[in-house]
Amino acid sequence: MTSQDEPATTRRRRRGPKLRATHPAVAPFITRAIPPYEMLTEDMLASIEAHAERLLEEIGLEIRGDAEAVRLWREAGADIVEECRVRVPKGLARTIVRRSAPATFTQHARNPARSVTIGGRCTVLAPAYGSPFVSDVDSGRRYGTLADFQNFVRLAYLSPWLHHSGGTVCEPTDLPVNKRHLDMLYAHMTLSDKPFMGSVTSAARAADSIEMCRILFGREFVDGHCVILGNVNVNSPLVLDGEASRVIRTYAAANQAPVCVPFILGGAMGPVTTAGGLAQCFAEALFCVALGQLERPGSPAILGNFLSSMSLRSGAPTFGTPEPALAYFAIGQLARRLGVPLRCGGNLCASKVPDAQAATESANSLWPAILAGANFVLHSAGWLEGGLVMSYEKFVMDLDQCGLMHVIGAGLNLDDNGFALDAFREVGPGKHFLGSAHTLRNYETAFFDAELSDNNSFEQWQQEGSHDICWRAHRRWRSLLAAYEPPALDASVDAALCEYISKRKASMPDRSY
Amino acid sequence: MTSQDEPATTRRRRRGPKLRATHPAVAPFITRAIPPYEMLTEDMLASIEAHAERLLEEIGLEIRGDAEAVRLWREAGADIVEECRVRVPKGLARTIVRRSAPATFTQHARNPARSVTIGGRCTVLAPAYGSPFVSDVDSGRRYGTLADFQNFVRLAYLSPWLHHSGGTVCEPTDLPVNKRHLDMLYAHMTLSDKPFMGSVTSAARAADSIEMCRILFGREFVDGHCVILGNVNVNSPLVLDGEASRVIRTYAAANQAPVCVPFILGGAMGPVTTAGGLAQCFAEALFCVALGQLERPGSPAILGNFLSSMSLRSGAPTFGTPEPALAYFAIGQLARRLGVPLRCGGNLCASKVPDAQAATESANSLWPAILAGANFVLHSAGWLEGGLVMSYEKFVMDLDQCGLMHVIGAGLNLDDNGFALDAFREVGPGKHFLGSAHTLRNYETAFFDAELSDNNSFEQWQQEGSHDICWRAHRRWRSLLAAYEPPALDASVDAALCEYISKRKASMPDRSY
Repeated sequence: MTSQDEPATTRRRRRGPKLRATHPAVAPFITRAIPPYEMLTEDMLASIEAHAERLLEEIGLEIRGDAEAVRLWREAGADIVEECRVRVPKGLARTIVRRSAPATFTQHARNPARSVTIGGRCTVLAPAYGSPFVSDVDSGRRYGTLADFQNFVRLAYLSPWLHHSGGTVCEPTDLPVNKRHLDMLYAHMTLSDKPFMGSVTSAARAADSIEMCRILFGREFVDGHCVILGNVNVNSPLVLDGEASRVIRTYAAANQAPVCVPFILGGAMGPVTTAGGLAQCFAEALFCVALGQLERPGSPAILGNFLSSMSLRSGAPTFGTPEPALAYFAIGQLARRLGVPLRCGGNLCASKVPDAQAATESANSLWPAILAGANFVLHSAGWLEGGLVMSYEKFVMDLDQCGLMHVIGAGLNLDDNGFALDAFREVGPGKHFLGSAHTLRNYETAFFDAELSDNNSFEQWQQEGSHDICWRAHRRWRSLLAAYEPPALDASVDAALCEYISKRKASMPDRSY
Repeated sequence: MTSQDEPATTRRRRRGPKLRATHPAVAPFITRAIPPYEMLTEDMLASIEAHAERLLEEIGLEIRGDAEAVRLWREAGADIVEECRVRVPKGLARTIVRRSAPATFTQHARNPARSVTIGGRCTVLAPAYGSPFVSDVDSGRRYGTLADFQNFVRLAYLSPWLHHSGGTVCEPTDLPVNKRHLDMLYAHMTLSDKPFMGSVTSAARAADSIEMCRILFGREFVDGHCVILGNVNVNSPLVLDGEASRVIRTYAAANQAPVCVPFILGGAMGPVTTAGGLAQCFAEALFCVALGQLERPGSPAILGNFLSSMSLRSGAPTFGTPEPALAYFAIGQLARRLGVPLRCGGNLCASKVPDAQAATESANSLWPAILAGANFVLHSAGWLEGGLVMSYEKFVMDLDQCGLMHVIGAGLNLDDNGFALDAFREVGPGKHFLGSAHTLRNYETAFFDAELSDNNSFEQWQQEGSHDICWRAHRRWRSLLAAYEPPALDASVDAALCEYISKRKASMPDRSY
């Protein structure tokens, strides 16, 4: 490693959480040994691409209030109408992206053992993002605070199944809107040593995020390496507001990775039919990824999507429904054809409580994300109530499912030990394998064991109080937090971060926007 | 239709349950427009097949107490050791199966509109099977009775998402063991008009099941058409007891379909490693399907599997874990290579209550079954506590997931209406699609709407009592049962069935085995 390849924190003493030593799947991210699910034929994929290109060419996207972004598109060959409508000739956006966007990149963590590869066969799981509320079964539903935010950063740090600290794991609503990003980043940087996401609510806050990374990782290192992601939503349909486009350009200019996410509630911000939403989503995300490349060719980016369906009874957004699942499979294939890493949502649900509705909806979202070959799965843990709530119990329940997906990703082991011919020879017909040499040799690592599942007999379960999984989840997150110890951080870096934060906070009055 | 092709009940007046008219997916079974997930390469599949063949050739299976079955295997070319150990030379079992077993067959229902195709791109969903207990949130967990059995047959009949009435939907423990199959079959035949399964606990009871079908469908029709399935478990590892082999032969001889199901709890009835369990499962199921072909070439059969993992903490069986999910994908591919319909388990779980554990485990089992391309999914609704309990609430919760899989199976609609270019032209950037002509034209059928999901706002949900899904499920199954009306059945057929049952009951004393 040259000095430029080495983040500033490498020399510091590190102490990670105690990982489950018996399971081989524990790793800084999932490297899938299984292929993605290829649902659509080449013809079908080409048809979706062609429809996306038609939307870009015939209708175009509006960039409202960022003349520089419009200028970049004009220079690249787009047709600009009425100052802000950008019509992109067929093939241009894909050409721009294919020419320079990396198919795979590393997001560095301050602990190099926790750096993640984003793209290709790799899948990185990150906690839920953006909820104003938090809940737990003791205290109920309430506005999130910085203390909650810190707790969720700690919980993500402690889990071997989350590879990423995420971003706005909940809104710290007890802090002024224009300053809270500083405290959020400080929490990610000090309470965890996993990779994280920065602010996207304004270009200045995005710049703050990157500046703090320069303190943590070293200025030179940051210019050459991705150390932060910024999750940017398109104002679907077909609008990119100027603040969002500046945020994309800010991250790209610093060689950091915008995650470009059309947010489409079918029937509202897109058509009610999935194919149309999919073409729109692909067009919008492609447009944003291409903008990042126009700003700085070769900078990393992630192609995102957030496709939700709608309840026919109430018009409310729904999650864990089949239409977005089908869209995931399709967009996975489209992202591979494009050659850009893909973001999908993880354990999404609409339920107000971590009940069977929440769990089924979440599984209906996580399975398609994983089998679609998603490279970055946001909202993998904690999401409740359509993202309005970050739930402590749901968080640890979801962790089990994240763990399970490590085993799915690892696929089948078809070596001689896996086939166990020696065991069959030892045991023979009608006998049991419990004491066989093969079983003794393998049982500790044989099966994934979900922390929160109760598989005991009914009688034993009854003796222990007849609890459902929420009760166990509540005890689990409390005991995790009680055992938490922060990873070490060089005192001078910590001081420099604090100084930067103080200076920035002093530079402006508190604001609620 | 010639008279021989027409079941005896065709002329009778039929009244089906009111199906959800707004959803296009309502059909007598799922015909998948999506491809199965192909997880393994051809080389990997060949390796599993080769290991299965080695088990059959080197170790063999024991058929304990059915000399005729052993004789059939000897005649076919197997090597018989110590009277009951059947060693099958490499390739023989697959040759026998490929020579005559149908890749696809129709199981006829007394209502022809409810007949199902089993095999190919078709997936048939059937309720859970075999639990001694039932539960609901009012009355708790208790032994099942005939009244419960009848209720579950009614509930399956009422659901557009279950295509099959199943078999032992719960054990009617209030009836003598040696007679209850008669009452179970009578319930399936009279309270529903969907296809069903017969008794497998003895060859005589299998014969009763078929005899009752002859009354219902007509003797001639039954000889030429499949009208009943029998779910037969292998005594894994590598033993087929004589009663089971006679049941397989009884169904096959009558041209009915045995479902051949190795029951393997990894570490007990098979090795702890998935590849070994998979090879064993394939070998055992192949052996049984081949036996059916030796009894009557061309008779229908289903290749089954029941692979469960084990808790490392307690040794208890676990469900909805990743190892059986991987095995499903593999065995789906193996079944297609063999050319025989595949059975997988559906909404399996270990939880004692219909909580988030139950729901996640169930989804972790149903998703792989569907994407593996399973043709017959037993245990699609109601299963709780490792199959010990049939839960009323879980039953209706699972129905929603069965419904969802209809949408997954239908895949993406990529026609012009699906792509909605007209809607984009009408709406344009930054506007919403709520009132667009395309939305109005499509919204009623656009999204799957799970009956039991609450997608309302938190405030509305709170006003309505802050209920979780169990509460809604309880109300749902009670209202379904309250609205139930049986499908009409010709009085003379009913009388003939009753007469047969009376005669059979009178012919033997009550027994508890």
